[in-house]
Amino acid sequence: MTGRTGRRAGESGTSEAILEAARTQFAEHGYHGATIRAIAGKAGVDPALVHHFYGTKEALFAAAMQLPIVPSQVLGAALEVGRDGPALGEHIVRTALTLWESDELKATFLGLIKSAVTSESAAVMLREFLAESILGTIARVTRVSGSPAEVQYRAAMVASQMIGLAMARLVLKLPAIADASIDELARSIGPTLERYLSGEMDVPD
Amino acid sequence: MTGRTGRRAGESGTSEAILEAARTQFAEHGYHGATIRAIAGKAGVDPALVHHFYGTKEALFAAAMQLPIVPSQVLGAALEVGRDGPALGEHIVRTALTLWESDELKATFLGLIKSAVTSESAAVMLREFLAESILGTIARVTRVSGSPAEVQYRAAMVASQMIGLAMARLVLKLPAIADASIDELARSIGPTLERYLSGEMDVPD
Repeated sequence: MTGRTGRRAGESGTSEAILEAARTQFAEHGYHGATIRAIAGKAGVDPALVHHFYGTKEALFAAAMQLPIVPSQVLGAALEVGRDGPALGEHIVRTALTLWESDELKATFLGLIKSAVTSESAAVMLREFLAESILGTIARVTRVSGSPAEVQYRAAMVASQMIGLAMARLVLKLPAIADASIDELARSIGPTLERYLSGEMDVPD
Repeated sequence: MTGRTGRRAGESGTSEAILEAARTQFAEHGYHGATIRAIAGKAGVDPALVHHFYGTKEALFAAAMQLPIVPSQVLGAALEVGRDGPALGEHIVRTALTLWESDELKATFLGLIKSAVTSESAAVMLREFLAESILGTIARVTRVSGSPAEVQYRAAMVASQMIGLAMARLVLKLPAIADASIDELARSIGPTLERYLSGEMDVPD
């Protein structure tokens, strides 16, 4: 392999070069700081080609991280289904647990948690990705209202409970939580999320 | 160093040998499976001496993990103070955040999370330690009632929110949560913990 001078000329070589450049840029500049333009520059292609291949920065991030889905799309679509139902909180818990525990996502999801805990740059990347993509999707679909700061705070509260649920169930495997069914957890945790999204709550200025 | 045949005869050599044996036994057998008897055997001392030096298995665990405190003692004492007050949930959040963010504990606490996420045996150890020591303390001091399974489930729900708060604030540093004050977080999350401890909730059989 050492004699090779670079990627092949074909499309898969180009897309591999883009993904490689994306991984480097996301790691060095975080999710927020990485730009399609810089990634294209690093890969030696036109930014339009990156847009053509991947569409959005998030979709490129998902491909670079080998996520089998674009999280905000799948989450958004799943949340849409139940957002007008009587138990939005339960619906969020059920949606998240079903996604995490799917065969395609479980290993990747655990890998993301692991890298965020062990690497500062991965933590930055995941934080910005959560803040821009996931929390934004939750806020938009569930129609949290308030100032931008309030919306971020409420969505972050939801995230804190859901991240803890993932840690307790998938990483630590606390028996009481690991042995519970998705429905049981949804009933227990749903009301918490509803209060965080729209209940009475003091929100920092 | 390689020519040495073992610990010195003095007390500090003996206590170092006990801690070394404890670290090995906790790692190999988990918190639950490790026994004072086996640790003493490994260290070549009488079990009574281990009890004399460390008192309880938890205190030995804390010393072996270089925790500057015995968690259930400090948590228990702090919770006692506020358990009859009007806002037990807020009190738990305030107590935990103040402990975690103290200069003595922060690095150790982050180290425990990191090791649990990256090592299966550390995860087992931490899970059993949480279940036996921390959740038990929460349940006892806050007087959660119900069957043993219900008490474990309610305490584990509290843990899921608190672990997620730690991840969001200390590891991922989500801005909305990292920038909030301890008091603000206590007011937001307190009611969640109260519902988990004593509110109406379906509990798995």
